[in-house]
Amino acid sequence: MSDEKAIPLVRPALPRGLIDRGPADIAAAEAMMAKIRAVYELYGFEAVETPFIEYTEALGKFLPDLDRPNEGVFSFKDDDEQWLSLRYDLTAPLARYVAEHYEKLPKPYRSYRAGWVFRNEKPGPGRFRQFMQFDADTVGAASVAADAEICMMAADCMEALGLNGRYVIKVNNRKVLDGVMEAIGLGGDDNAGRRLIVLRAIDKLDRLGPEGVRALLGDGRKDESGDFTKGAGLDLASINRVLAYTGARAADNGATLAALTPAVSGSPIGEAGLAELSEIAALTAAAGGEDRVIVDPSVVRGLEYYTGPVFEAELTFEVKDEAGRPVRFGSVGGGGRYDGLVARFRGEAVPATGFSIGVSRLLSALRAIDSPIVAAAKKAGPVIVVALDRDHMADYQRLVSELRGAGIASELYLGSSGLNAQLKYADRRGSPCAIIQGSNEREAAGGRQVVIRDLILGAELAKISKDRADYLEMRQRAQALAPEAELVARVREVLGRQRA
Amino acid sequence: MSDEKAIPLVRPALPRGLIDRGPADIAAAEAMMAKIRAVYELYGFEAVETPFIEYTEALGKFLPDLDRPNEGVFSFKDDDEQWLSLRYDLTAPLARYVAEHYEKLPKPYRSYRAGWVFRNEKPGPGRFRQFMQFDADTVGAASVAADAEICMMAADCMEALGLNGRYVIKVNNRKVLDGVMEAIGLGGDDNAGRRLIVLRAIDKLDRLGPEGVRALLGDGRKDESGDFTKGAGLDLASINRVLAYTGARAADNGATLAALTPAVSGSPIGEAGLAELSEIAALTAAAGGEDRVIVDPSVVRGLEYYTGPVFEAELTFEVKDEAGRPVRFGSVGGGGRYDGLVARFRGEAVPATGFSIGVSRLLSALRAIDSPIVAAAKKAGPVIVVALDRDHMADYQRLVSELRGAGIASELYLGSSGLNAQLKYADRRGSPCAIIQGSNEREAAGGRQVVIRDLILGAELAKISKDRADYLEMRQRAQALAPEAELVARVREVLGRQRA
Repeated sequence: MSDEKAIPLVRPALPRGLIDRGPADIAAAEAMMAKIRAVYELYGFEAVETPFIEYTEALGKFLPDLDRPNEGVFSFKDDDEQWLSLRYDLTAPLARYVAEHYEKLPKPYRSYRAGWVFRNEKPGPGRFRQFMQFDADTVGAASVAADAEICMMAADCMEALGLNGRYVIKVNNRKVLDGVMEAIGLGGDDNAGRRLIVLRAIDKLDRLGPEGVRALLGDGRKDESGDFTKGAGLDLASINRVLAYTGARAADNGATLAALTPAVSGSPIGEAGLAELSEIAALTAAAGGEDRVIVDPSVVRGLEYYTGPVFEAELTFEVKDEAGRPVRFGSVGGGGRYDGLVARFRGEAVPATGFSIGVSRLLSALRAIDSPIVAAAKKAGPVIVVALDRDHMADYQRLVSELRGAGIASELYLGSSGLNAQLKYADRRGSPCAIIQGSNEREAAGGRQVVIRDLILGAELAKISKDRADYLEMRQRAQALAPEAELVARVREVLGRQRA
Repeated sequence: MSDEKAIPLVRPALPRGLIDRGPADIAAAEAMMAKIRAVYELYGFEAVETPFIEYTEALGKFLPDLDRPNEGVFSFKDDDEQWLSLRYDLTAPLARYVAEHYEKLPKPYRSYRAGWVFRNEKPGPGRFRQFMQFDADTVGAASVAADAEICMMAADCMEALGLNGRYVIKVNNRKVLDGVMEAIGLGGDDNAGRRLIVLRAIDKLDRLGPEGVRALLGDGRKDESGDFTKGAGLDLASINRVLAYTGARAADNGATLAALTPAVSGSPIGEAGLAELSEIAALTAAAGGEDRVIVDPSVVRGLEYYTGPVFEAELTFEVKDEAGRPVRFGSVGGGGRYDGLVARFRGEAVPATGFSIGVSRLLSALRAIDSPIVAAAKKAGPVIVVALDRDHMADYQRLVSELRGAGIASELYLGSSGLNAQLKYADRRGSPCAIIQGSNEREAAGGRQVVIRDLILGAELAKISKDRADYLEMRQRAQALAPEAELVARVREVLGRQRA
């Protein structure tokens, strides 16, 4: 550093899609996650954590964008030329963990974990390249009772976060759509191309409505500009089946399940999937989840590793989108059954199901409804002992030690500024009060004294009109002289008053 | 997955130097970190977190091994060809954060953060490529009062962890050794080579003793095998100065400081460094840290960014090394002043000092002394409701819901095994008790009943001799029949008894 001026300055900035977190964000996320953790533990799930780096091969390629195999994950070569990657979710590492420790784990193996994951994707508003998930998984239970339990647990998490009546857990089953495809003669690897055309048509339901989709499933559709999109070429019966599937969601689960029945009839996989959905609906209803766990054929989930039931936690209250239009808040988490993921390591299928909460998205939701969980997490700053006379630092050190000894978060100002800047500093730190001791207080006839300045009251004082009686009374309370011996007791008085 | 057999199996394994963490480790680390966090907050430090990935350039190259600039950190190229790295400590990212948000941060800026860091180094016993640090830093305070405070806070962390009398915070100052070098005419860039020879000689003090070092500082030294190592060629006065420095540690800080005085006399930088050390000793003594914060010239700290005081938290109790020999547990954290780190971004020096705790190393220390913090963190498993009759799952579901409704962590067994395997499963989960309901209990004349089996008592029972009276009495307590209506109350009784 001796030749410092010659070194060009480095720009202090983060790569795109990465952000810092301040104390309010950290405390709010912690408070929210403590509630979720309590629910997971109440259900008998235990903590486990895996590292951020895994062999690329162990993670597999389960991200949605299969056309660009090297995108989506951050990868780098190890010294021994093996490829390593930062994990892109917590499910693939869990599958590796379970396969590695299979013999010694209790089965079913029920575990939860919160952790940062990384996606090397184009960031956007609310989309980051590093974000936190909070997952719970049951491995080794083939029964849909395990899926139903995961749905109820997701619902209980939402309840624990005070979202009563403002969420639904939507559940679907991959096998039901597979069954529809099978029933219309589009099963098997050979029909992958035509299946994709049908899936793309279904995907346009929101935008084009049932009649638009009907055209795309049949001969094709001409849009307003006159452009023609060639259709999937299905016959009328097949088209009606697909539309029976997409339009099945009804007033309650019983009606939805009834509406799905003709869509899968004759397909063994479809009928099996529908039976599973019915059982999940029955089990969650028995556990009091009738209005909270909703069968919804529109739930798809992007990750390709799901093999059966899939879930999504959707918040139903409205917020404004970027253009100021009211929109449903939408998904804050999801999951499903992935019976094939551990099999990649062990050769035999190992049944597994789980759920993943998007921590920062759920936190934005709590912020949007002014959740008391977020408000309660806010911490006050420390009491500031002002460093007024630099040759009496040992005295101030004694005061701050006394406060800390009483368990009161406090700090001796260690910068080089004067009194006014120190009080401004205390305000910026959100300090409840400042302790001041000048020569007057130090040399008071009856023994050492301190000035205790209530900074919250002081800030209010600055806002109100200076009506004499009120103002003076508040001013008196806002700054009080006290014997040094009463320091802790008087500071506690201020803290108690501010909390009230 | 249709062609599953053709796909070769993936080996479930982690890259070297990376490990998973189970529930006991996670809970113990959390409990330990909560104690540290409480101390940091008591001192008025606030939380901040930065992401794991930074521009390589922003992190700089401050790792010890400067000969291999591409080793030590995990790096990869971003889409825009800029180099990114995983952070290797929490200090370099803090410097970037402070520089980026300089104007809006209160100054001094006091913050803490716990986080995983990554080193692409050869792992060894207790050395990992991913590990956690827990740091606190004061940026913007040039006064050594800030360094003294960090030392006291580190000491208070050790106290809060129950390490009373089993640790010292060692403090030194880079400027003191620089001063010794300056005084013997080895200051400045031109003498870097000779300084290195002197530093290497000092480094051998433990192995060769003062006389061996004396030889290496002078003409050179012949070892037992007859090999000759050329010395630094210092004159007698210079050798005596260096040895005065290395041998300065005395019975108390006053004596150590006195012994250092001749070593630096005549060197402005050395005298300034010694004055700083004296002030730190005085301030920590005033704050009650006389026996806990110790001036020790042997503290060096590997990172090159330190510019003044350096600290090390050393645990003084003995453990056995790999060969079974008793050794001091040693360092669990360290830090120092790094006034030049923010300057890389801003051009102007920004004073800063901080301390970093090695979380897993400190946790091993707590384990080594059987800390009650570790023991208290251990969580019991959930109550297990046995799935005895598969066609009565809804009944069992009701029982587990009732327990959860009462806040008791519990779980309905969702695997496919029979009663004995389920009870073994409950044991492996560390369950306090199992709830069993078969047809006898379900159809009991006076109303539904449940069997509540105390698994902890049951395990003890299995260990003791079957002396009739004792055994039968314990056996009766270990498994009790209860009306279903009393489920929660009776389970609470078992939990209470186990806690007592």
